[in-house]
Amino acid sequence: MKNFLEIEQERILYKGEHFFIIKDAFPVSPGHSLIISNSPKSDYFDLTSEERKNLDELILIAKDLIEKELKPHGYNIGMNCGETAGQTVFHFHCHLIPRYQGDMENPRGGVRHCIKGKGDY
Amino acid sequence: MKNFLEIEQERILYKGEHFFIIKDAFPVSPGHSLIISNSPKSDYFDLTSEERKNLDELILIAKDLIEKELKPHGYNIGMNCGETAGQTVFHFHCHLIPRYQGDMENPRGGVRHCIKGKGDY
Repeated sequence: MKNFLEIEQERILYKGEHFFIIKDAFPVSPGHSLIISNSPKSDYFDLTSEERKNLDELILIAKDLIEKELKPHGYNIGMNCGETAGQTVFHFHCHLIPRYQGDMENPRGGVRHCIKGKGDY
Repeated sequence: MKNFLEIEQERILYKGEHFFIIKDAFPVSPGHSLIISNSPKSDYFDLTSEERKNLDELILIAKDLIEKELKPHGYNIGMNCGETAGQTVFHFHCHLIPRYQGDMENPRGGVRHCIKGKGDY
């Protein structure tokens, strides 16, 4: 997939002025959601200032949608900017990853683990 | 460390109205930086709306500071919210992690790897 513009409309959980929300197709935890830009910007740094300022509202809406169904104990919020950073779809999306007690033995580090083998400290 | 309020002043690279910037003490890559709230909010969801909207400006400033010294090819931006999500210092901080070509064999997944063993897809 090159961008998220061809997503089936029924997958869209919420559509705002600048972003829409879907569940991740390859969720790493129950409820894993994506906040995706309406226009096909490549990554966070390609968003306009207005879009970046609006992003926080959509993260809160995505969290509320998750919490209608699930009761996570924490969240990781993360963005991969560029292929070297692990990005595979070059259309801005922010990951909102619910976390649950015991979902891994030692969660310490969180997003630090984006570079395998370096996250432990 | 319970919060970042006792950080040595000389570690602070930039101080804004709502956030300050330091280099991570246990960097996972050269330039790994933290954007920390001036007031000791626990995590992203504890920030005020004004603080959240200001965060993007500080992320751009942190990126500029990194690029004065280094030439990354990408970035991961991430926040751990809650102990279950791997947070260890309960004072809001956003990770800005520069990424470099070849820093790991297969970077695919990025922040998905916050849950070990689940990031590959």
